[in-house]
Amino acid sequence: MRLRVDPLPAEGLAYPDVVLVVDVIRATTTAAALLEAGAEALYLTAGLEAARAFKDEDVVLSGEVGGLRPPGFDLGNSPREALEAPVGGRIVVMATTNGTRAAHAARGARAILLGSLQNATAVAQEAARLGEEVALVCAGREGQVALDDLYAAGVIGKRLQERGFRAMGDAAALALFLAVHPPWEVLPVSEAALALREVGLWADVEACARVDAHGVVPLHEGFCGEGMVFRRADAEEP
Amino acid sequence: MRLRVDPLPAEGLAYPDVVLVVDVIRATTTAAALLEAGAEALYLTAGLEAARAFKDEDVVLSGEVGGLRPPGFDLGNSPREALEAPVGGRIVVMATTNGTRAAHAARGARAILLGSLQNATAVAQEAARLGEEVALVCAGREGQVALDDLYAAGVIGKRLQERGFRAMGDAAALALFLAVHPPWEVLPVSEAALALREVGLWADVEACARVDAHGVVPLHEGFCGEGMVFRRADAEEP
Repeated sequence: MRLRVDPLPAEGLAYPDVVLVVDVIRATTTAAALLEAGAEALYLTAGLEAARAFKDEDVVLSGEVGGLRPPGFDLGNSPREALEAPVGGRIVVMATTNGTRAAHAARGARAILLGSLQNATAVAQEAARLGEEVALVCAGREGQVALDDLYAAGVIGKRLQERGFRAMGDAAALALFLAVHPPWEVLPVSEAALALREVGLWADVEACARVDAHGVVPLHEGFCGEGMVFRRADAEEP
Repeated sequence: MRLRVDPLPAEGLAYPDVVLVVDVIRATTTAAALLEAGAEALYLTAGLEAARAFKDEDVVLSGEVGGLRPPGFDLGNSPREALEAPVGGRIVVMATTNGTRAAHAARGARAILLGSLQNATAVAQEAARLGEEVALVCAGREGQVALDDLYAAGVIGKRLQERGFRAMGDAAALALFLAVHPPWEVLPVSEAALALREVGLWADVEACARVDAHGVVPLHEGFCGEGMVFRRADAEEP
């Protein structure tokens, strides 16, 4: 049983059976929070336009541009807002700059999960259940390695190690060294956190840093148009 | 005064005035060791063929393929061998897989230094003397982020911070978190170290891990054919 870490997603990369996408500030944190809040399913799109294509359907539109809710969208990309949003039983279409794009880059994999600090233990457990080779794919920040994503990959990676997975390669070692530090030391100095502070969303950084806050794991189930459909891993088959 | 870390070199990237190239296992460690051993100058070439072009001149050829000395070369890429090699007053032409290529990618910068753990404090001091914006460029390993290079970038970056430089961006933060760990914890688990163990060169890993072993800093001075010429930063102008 082996785990690897990809510091950045790459179209056409050979992914193992199980891919765990991490965009901790904030897309994958928010995605799990939306399901925790009762959303029936998420449709992740690679960009805003693909999300807008769903606007005449009975869906909730969630997304961000520069950290903020785009015109015509119902929700921003905030895990705090997600928990209070009236999404019970609804389908949420999500479009973010890095996270949903990273999920699309991994769409060839057999199983795709969305990981964050908030669901770290649960997502590691689900990944271990699904396969013997796991890639933790970091979304990064506009093509650059992101501190928060590598950190969360390390925190999740540690939990996979505890389940018998062997870390392969330098990026996995790097993430695991980083995971030695507590989240409140690492996350606040990340560029993603600093950008949220600029737009008055510092409380979101604190929310994203809450390790094992819940046990909800978004699992890829199929496609709906250009949306990748995710539901709770513990949900009944629709 | 600011410092940044590039996890990988990139042709055509905008580099600040001062670039510090790091390929700690082993090219930049060996380069400094060759100058410490008395070599008059180094010519770094981007590949083996460019190095072979110098073979009829009065030079020492140093290089590696898969960690080992290529046919027709005088020296491998070993920092231990470098210290004992009869290179006094000679020009050494060096070709390695990642390190010399990374130096070539940075060739547009005003000042280029070669950094390693062995010359960490000296190279930070020299970089601080030369400019106010420093990029620590990691050579990486065949296009992938390398643990040993990011670690050394962190160790050198810490010394720049102590001289008043501010770390900018996630990769710099990442390297600085990594630098909290002692070298004998980090270097041995790197892929570069494991590859050297495979070919019986484990002692080279131990040599590369010796922080501040000496104060010799290779500084780029110009070109000779396809070779980038490096001399000791404290040497008299030729």
